[in-house]
Amino acid sequence: MHLPKGFRFAGVSAGIKSRAGAKDVVLIVSEKPCTAAGVYTTNQIVAAPVVLSRSRTPSNRLRGIVVNSGNANACTGVQGDRDAAEMTRLAAEGLQASISGEMAQDDFLVMSTGIIGRQLPMEKIRTGIERAIGELGSSEAHFLNACDGIMTTDAFRKIADRTAWSSQGNHALVGMCKGAGMIGPKMATMLAIVVTDAPLDRYQAQRMLQAAANRSFNCISVEGHMSTNDSLVLLATSPTEQTPALSDADAAIFEAELTELCIELAKKIPDDGEGATHLIEIQIRGANTDADADAIARSIALSNLVKTAITGGDPNWGRIVSAAGYAGVPIQPKRTALKINGISLFDAGEPLPFDAKTVSSSIRAQKLTLIELQVGLGPGTATHWTTDLNSEYVRFNSEYTT
Amino acid sequence: MHLPKGFRFAGVSAGIKSRAGAKDVVLIVSEKPCTAAGVYTTNQIVAAPVVLSRSRTPSNRLRGIVVNSGNANACTGVQGDRDAAEMTRLAAEGLQASISGEMAQDDFLVMSTGIIGRQLPMEKIRTGIERAIGELGSSEAHFLNACDGIMTTDAFRKIADRTAWSSQGNHALVGMCKGAGMIGPKMATMLAIVVTDAPLDRYQAQRMLQAAANRSFNCISVEGHMSTNDSLVLLATSPTEQTPALSDADAAIFEAELTELCIELAKKIPDDGEGATHLIEIQIRGANTDADADAIARSIALSNLVKTAITGGDPNWGRIVSAAGYAGVPIQPKRTALKINGISLFDAGEPLPFDAKTVSSSIRAQKLTLIELQVGLGPGTATHWTTDLNSEYVRFNSEYTT
Repeated sequence: MHLPKGFRFAGVSAGIKSRAGAKDVVLIVSEKPCTAAGVYTTNQIVAAPVVLSRSRTPSNRLRGIVVNSGNANACTGVQGDRDAAEMTRLAAEGLQASISGEMAQDDFLVMSTGIIGRQLPMEKIRTGIERAIGELGSSEAHFLNACDGIMTTDAFRKIADRTAWSSQGNHALVGMCKGAGMIGPKMATMLAIVVTDAPLDRYQAQRMLQAAANRSFNCISVEGHMSTNDSLVLLATSPTEQTPALSDADAAIFEAELTELCIELAKKIPDDGEGATHLIEIQIRGANTDADADAIARSIALSNLVKTAITGGDPNWGRIVSAAGYAGVPIQPKRTALKINGISLFDAGEPLPFDAKTVSSSIRAQKLTLIELQVGLGPGTATHWTTDLNSEYVRFNSEYTT
Repeated sequence: MHLPKGFRFAGVSAGIKSRAGAKDVVLIVSEKPCTAAGVYTTNQIVAAPVVLSRSRTPSNRLRGIVVNSGNANACTGVQGDRDAAEMTRLAAEGLQASISGEMAQDDFLVMSTGIIGRQLPMEKIRTGIERAIGELGSSEAHFLNACDGIMTTDAFRKIADRTAWSSQGNHALVGMCKGAGMIGPKMATMLAIVVTDAPLDRYQAQRMLQAAANRSFNCISVEGHMSTNDSLVLLATSPTEQTPALSDADAAIFEAELTELCIELAKKIPDDGEGATHLIEIQIRGANTDADADAIARSIALSNLVKTAITGGDPNWGRIVSAAGYAGVPIQPKRTALKINGISLFDAGEPLPFDAKTVSSSIRAQKLTLIELQVGLGPGTATHWTTDLNSEYVRFNSEYTT
């Protein structure tokens, strides 16, 4: 794994999570002021750390991010706002001694994930931040500790890396994210952090991150619930006279790599939907616009009837085609065509004869199910990823009692 | 049950459904030309009978409705269009002998519900329509036969009746509907027919039916899937010089009764969600507009996390409040307040201390769970009804294989 130059990572255990030794405080620090961009939940019920970080991006003088898992600091009122700010103050003051240059709490972002409606255990967080400062480093082991520290109900670590070529040389991109279906008591949050040593202007970074999010993290669903804490942050090298921000041509290459990296990360979330037996990829072609294609993909991805059909290995074209039909954007029924795992089931508005056993076997034989739907109008495309819906999921989500 | 004057009903078995003797062809006939209004699925993938009936309402010279269950005549191409028209022709020609006055196939509506993607068994339908014509009658037994004949996967018969008072006297309203969650192989359709002897102008009837639908059938969900066949039709007496259309004042009273009747019918559908252990009523207050309140109620009603929480008897305010937060319409988080079964859990943007066991017991103790959410902005209100989500539902919907 090729880590970007100029960043340090730490993940430590501070006892916020109940499992002994579980890492729950993370620090990512830039050796020099860096560029930061952020994309956040659009839920109006929004956690204190999101409000704070959102106000501090995009930035051209960021110094780092402090993250805790085990407690989301959401629905925590004024005390929650104070605690989020305090986390960034603790990071700034603690780092002042060990990293060169002035830094203030405004130069830090904060993320929290875990149970909602409970105040942060600030004594543990204070100890954790101190310990994380002491353990900062730039090796792969340090990076992986940070990845572990942002996880909550994840069954596996979610990381990805890419290299972007530019006229200035090679730039490393590494990313980590967390998120799965609901297995814990409260809502699952998606957090993602991408770090690169490509020199980016803050507005350039913000624009590229939003575009990448629209093709990745905004295209996944497990249960369709948008959390109060969802956050995606990009840290990049701050441009200088010697290393100016990427040119438009170089930025286009970078954006493609960033998008691919975000898609790779994002897909790992429905792939980790608890109890999920299938990762469902929904490719829409032929909508009037990409936004229309997105609406159709979303309608299918959120359909419990589609999801349960895949669980059962049932090539139920009716559920899929009708979910497209009520997405609220135009389709052309008489030119609509559907394939599951490459096998045509429906064409020109009518069902085709097909061997149900062959399709069913292909669904049962592999974790990925590919749904390709052509809606017969225009150039708009979208791809979404979701999970199936099975009894395990329901059991997980109904057996918890507050 | 007080049946409206001037209408005859029949429900017979024609062998379309596999279960021997199950009624599957229904005829409702008006002794004189009557008024008809209709509200239909907005799914763009739409069944042949819906296309035909939609083109024939509102009407001031309707003679009847012919319905079959067991086959939805959806996704059946040009042959399906021909068969839907043929059903109305068979009804008109067959009735010509037994009912006074000229009638043409255009004077009939048609509804179908059942499996999709298969051509109608027209021989059975032909026999069924003939038999239904022979069995038409105006007793309660005839009405109940018709109710049974529109059912598919319903666990129980869904009927309701009301009386509307007007300056012209009392008017009877009776309604039947069918629809449940998915237990059969394909998509569940909602069909509803309301018959009244109130004299209504066709545009008056259409306006009132749409308004009633917006507060009833448009406010229920089992799995959020809109079918290709959903239809709601109102038949009323055609006004004459002696019995003119209801005055505005009388129509307001009638509309209130019609709305109440539609709500009573509509609630029976999620109450019959297969395997459902709870009927969830979601009351929204304080949105900017009724339409905004509707969007918030829908977002909560479609949340698998809310539905599974109720299954588990979990007073999980976080899932409910956050589903409101991403509904895409404004709420005021700092004035948001939530009650479950009358117990306050959340107020002014923060969780309240509450006895989780008491709330949990109240959820477990009864089939109905009442969620009241105040969003702190304006006068907009809405009420939606949905089911919980449990392993039974998933099992039902995933075990079928085409």
